[in-house]
Amino acid sequence: MDEGFEFDHQIAVSPTGQGSYDALIDAGWVVGGGVNGGYLLAVLGNAIRHALPAKPDPVAVSAYYLSAARPGPATVTVDVRREGGRVATVAADLVQGEDTRITVLATYGDLDRFGDDVRTTAVEPEMPAVEDCVRGSDAPPEVLALAPMMGRFDMRFHPDDVGWAVGRPSGTGLIRAWFRLVDAREPDPVSLLMTVDALPPVTFNLGMMGWAPTLELSAHVRAKPAPGWLKVHHETRNLAGGMFEEDCEVWDSAGRLVAQSRQLALQPRP
Amino acid sequence: MDEGFEFDHQIAVSPTGQGSYDALIDAGWVVGGGVNGGYLLAVLGNAIRHALPAKPDPVAVSAYYLSAARPGPATVTVDVRREGGRVATVAADLVQGEDTRITVLATYGDLDRFGDDVRTTAVEPEMPAVEDCVRGSDAPPEVLALAPMMGRFDMRFHPDDVGWAVGRPSGTGLIRAWFRLVDAREPDPVSLLMTVDALPPVTFNLGMMGWAPTLELSAHVRAKPAPGWLKVHHETRNLAGGMFEEDCEVWDSAGRLVAQSRQLALQPRP
Repeated sequence: MDEGFEFDHQIAVSPTGQGSYDALIDAGWVVGGGVNGGYLLAVLGNAIRHALPAKPDPVAVSAYYLSAARPGPATVTVDVRREGGRVATVAADLVQGEDTRITVLATYGDLDRFGDDVRTTAVEPEMPAVEDCVRGSDAPPEVLALAPMMGRFDMRFHPDDVGWAVGRPSGTGLIRAWFRLVDAREPDPVSLLMTVDALPPVTFNLGMMGWAPTLELSAHVRAKPAPGWLKVHHETRNLAGGMFEEDCEVWDSAGRLVAQSRQLALQPRP
Repeated sequence: MDEGFEFDHQIAVSPTGQGSYDALIDAGWVVGGGVNGGYLLAVLGNAIRHALPAKPDPVAVSAYYLSAARPGPATVTVDVRREGGRVATVAADLVQGEDTRITVLATYGDLDRFGDDVRTTAVEPEMPAVEDCVRGSDAPPEVLALAPMMGRFDMRFHPDDVGWAVGRPSGTGLIRAWFRLVDAREPDPVSLLMTVDALPPVTFNLGMMGWAPTLELSAHVRAKPAPGWLKVHHETRNLAGGMFEEDCEVWDSAGRLVAQSRQLALQPRP
């Protein structure tokens, strides 16, 4: 990993002993009144990676969001619950002051040792060429001012999925986009933990423009992503009872389904 | 809950103080060399329910399976990580002797207070009538002998999805079935935690008949199920790298999507 890329600085952790790591939550990932949950998960995921040098890749990560994080110092604690065989499982917390922001269970392994049989039946999303999609950075200045995180990556929306930006939500719970980090920093298993939660909530396309706080997000990283643009597919199929699930798929430039996630979020208030 | 039903006895817990509960893992839920993971999750879920009387319903539960449980005594410990507002979040472990079998994060609430707007776009599975489906109890006696758990419920498979039972797997990663507990014990939010992991692994229909150990399972319970038969839909779309994800939907007799889960499991060894 090249520490010259801003993302690597932003997720950096320093060990302070006994499974504890210092981190600095970067103001560049603010969105609305909070900090993007995917970025916070990547900070946690990076600390866990340091705690498990022989099993450096997230395989399954489940995060429960307890309170809203703020830019500034944070501590990540990693407690190895089981290690042995192909995988290790840990419990980890991201804490600021007295408050736990996120508590996590995670299983890590070495994705290079997981075999390369691929019998994926899921279908890769069809996307127009990158240059024919709609740049996230073309959002109105007042939107960008509320979402500094939009400056952290290049996101190109499927033209069919951006009606919400001009007051004409598609009415489908679907948003698809091309995605890559700024500086052309290439994706890796830890950055995928951020990518699964980087798009706007799919509820935007259902006409609900508010913030949708995540209760829980579980991600599976299924392979190391190839370099280049990622395709991200977000969809909800069950908006009910004031909550909705949001499923995410991330496909790499080689056409492989490299990450899947599902989150449960609170429906935005009108 | 009527303690006259066998399921309620099998998931019963007794508080021993400080968030600790005694339980007895029932031999009736053995399958192959282990105990069904869904049943174990319902035992955990029942202990958490006791620890949170004002928020009795599982909303999101993420379970990481660390070692194979055995019939016999077990202890469940519940640590409340955050309580306030609509939901509470806990960490919980199911332990036998010195070994943690399952470690869990869970968010609970009161589903009766979650509103009744339903804008589900997922489509209810089409199933032939219960009496036109294939009884799980018609499996060969040698299969039933290995899976005492098949006696805990009435499961009626979609006729298109049982080719694996006669050596002709469908080749699709799909199994659908009607489901209800014996004694006509009605479903509730805790029993749904079992139902999402009660069907045979979908890999059976891909010609892989072995045991598929779960690494991680996350379930969302989205509504209290109506009485009667449940429809269960299991599917995988990404068998790769020696692992597969299995998505489950549970629909109740009123046609509502009441639970969704996703698990990551190890591919059965040939």
